[in-house]
Amino acid sequence: MEKALILAEGRYNTSDGKTAHGLVRYSQRYQIVGVVDSTLAGRDAGEVLDGVYRGIPIYGSFEEAITENPDVKYLIIGVATPGGYLPSVYREIVKKAIKRGLNIVSGLHYFLSSESEFARLAKRYKVQLIDVRKIFRELKIPFSGKIEEVNAIKVAVLGTDGAIGKRTTAIMLHEAFNRFGKKSIFIAMGQTGWMQGFKYAIVMDSIVNDFVAGAIEDVIWRAWKEENPDVIVTHGEGSLLHPAYPGGFELIASGRPDYIVLQHAPARKYFDDFPQYEIPPLEKYIQLIELLSGKKPIAITINSENLSKEDAFKIAREIESTYGILTKVPLYESIDEIVKLILEERMKIKQMEVEASVESQVL
Amino acid sequence: MEKALILAEGRYNTSDGKTAHGLVRYSQRYQIVGVVDSTLAGRDAGEVLDGVYRGIPIYGSFEEAITENPDVKYLIIGVATPGGYLPSVYREIVKKAIKRGLNIVSGLHYFLSSESEFARLAKRYKVQLIDVRKIFRELKIPFSGKIEEVNAIKVAVLGTDGAIGKRTTAIMLHEAFNRFGKKSIFIAMGQTGWMQGFKYAIVMDSIVNDFVAGAIEDVIWRAWKEENPDVIVTHGEGSLLHPAYPGGFELIASGRPDYIVLQHAPARKYFDDFPQYEIPPLEKYIQLIELLSGKKPIAITINSENLSKEDAFKIAREIESTYGILTKVPLYESIDEIVKLILEERMKIKQMEVEASVESQVL
Repeated sequence: MEKALILAEGRYNTSDGKTAHGLVRYSQRYQIVGVVDSTLAGRDAGEVLDGVYRGIPIYGSFEEAITENPDVKYLIIGVATPGGYLPSVYREIVKKAIKRGLNIVSGLHYFLSSESEFARLAKRYKVQLIDVRKIFRELKIPFSGKIEEVNAIKVAVLGTDGAIGKRTTAIMLHEAFNRFGKKSIFIAMGQTGWMQGFKYAIVMDSIVNDFVAGAIEDVIWRAWKEENPDVIVTHGEGSLLHPAYPGGFELIASGRPDYIVLQHAPARKYFDDFPQYEIPPLEKYIQLIELLSGKKPIAITINSENLSKEDAFKIAREIESTYGILTKVPLYESIDEIVKLILEERMKIKQMEVEASVESQVL
Repeated sequence: MEKALILAEGRYNTSDGKTAHGLVRYSQRYQIVGVVDSTLAGRDAGEVLDGVYRGIPIYGSFEEAITENPDVKYLIIGVATPGGYLPSVYREIVKKAIKRGLNIVSGLHYFLSSESEFARLAKRYKVQLIDVRKIFRELKIPFSGKIEEVNAIKVAVLGTDGAIGKRTTAIMLHEAFNRFGKKSIFIAMGQTGWMQGFKYAIVMDSIVNDFVAGAIEDVIWRAWKEENPDVIVTHGEGSLLHPAYPGGFELIASGRPDYIVLQHAPARKYFDDFPQYEIPPLEKYIQLIELLSGKKPIAITINSENLSKEDAFKIAREIESTYGILTKVPLYESIDEIVKLILEERMKIKQMEVEASVESQVL
């Protein structure tokens, strides 16, 4: 793996830093050697994120980071900004990095490679400008219905808001299925997942609208066809009721998940980036999921941000008893029960199918 | 207006021909002088469409059409194919048209201008290749919340399927509002509407997914800001429950319509282009719309395809009494009652607001 630095100046400890967070948690495409954010200089990126030290230092400047890591090959823009623009203070750092011979990786909607100044510099210093979203804008696969061939268990994590931890919970479920002896494949649907290096990854929200359904179907179908897994775990983008990032519908429509896990942050009152819009009650999401997919969520997972451990558990138990849906706080407790429940439910359905088939043969 | 021919070979009388149908019904950008479809040669395009003669002949070949209309300036690809490809028999006709000096207008996902053979020919014969969808792929307007400023009545027509007549019903409502003395603006959301020449038009499904919400908000806001209308009428693309074209959510999320009219084709059993998927019951759409927008549809409009006039009316009355929602068959009866109902409902709300404000001043 090539070494990479993450640029998250001023934003590592905000929800804009979710690309950086994903890479600090998990990275198979690049070896992350540090994060640049002067407001957190000297701390460990893992410790800031979730209290777990990961040996990834936060540097006060790009210069400092590069002095400590002279063999680094990539600078990754570690933030997702509303509207997808490159923050202005990042421009100079990107230019310095290009001049220093680093390739630049960006998941922003704003394409670095489309700007003449960056393009010229990149050519001169023989580095690549990798705009992850540009790759997916060209994807034009129509939906065909081949998703119906996929007989692996399809699990999707949706959320009541954007930037709420859907991908992280999905990866935890995927790992738990593997621990249970099931072959699970995780499919990433966003730019962070692509950067993290998952073999099956699309950037759903960079695809032209009419081809989103086809791209989702295709990546799930390919993962199934090529890997023959027992389980496929993936996640939606945005939220079913988000005014700016309405999402999850395409995944339900064309990915046709067998089970949906709903990620919820009880302490979050307003939509990510849109404090003028209140997040509707959890109940509404449960009803919507039932209408759209034919089933209630199989489980609810709690993002415990701004909650004490005690409060997170208390709320989880309340939600569980109110809605009769298994509810877990992944940061503080095992999610194995969710995996067990999904496998049991699936077994019941298979059992019923076998019985129905036996019955029809007897008659 | 410049003269244009529509190419719809073999498909004018199918749901793939919806671009042609829209242009035969209404065209302000181009003057439509004929349709090319050898399977319907000699008939009138309006008569084939809905029994109403419009003086637009269907020609058996491009050569015949061009002989009859030597001053035509544009050839419009009049079909929308699954996946957005140019049907192979259309290729030769497009090449002939370019050589004959015609500009080509296409709403297909497949870009004519991106193919070297067409691009070379177009350059040589000095004609334009206008790929409508390419224009909108570059649109990157983030959602901001400015939609809340819009105090015109916002009406959106959604449908239980794609290619079901949402745009046509929306235009009828728009015209009815104007007849009622209200200033109405129609906003087109698809490539056909753009080709038809509406001042406010986007091609929603050609926009990169993350910017769909922002584009919808922006076009509605601009129409309101620039025209100061009483009413804005628009329409969704696809259908809330379509496996391949899930749509309507973005419009509800970011356009925040005050009233939704639901277009339904009772005789249609399977989704457009996807005979393996049954259209779910109407009731499910009503519930979804209520959950997503906070209100049931204000009215249901019936697409009477494959129904006798009598059956269409019978079903409309049944739906009306089952769901308690005003239901009309726009092809056979006036939709003025829908307009009246919307204006009355709006008046009631305004009245309540005034009373609440008076009350708060008195207290």
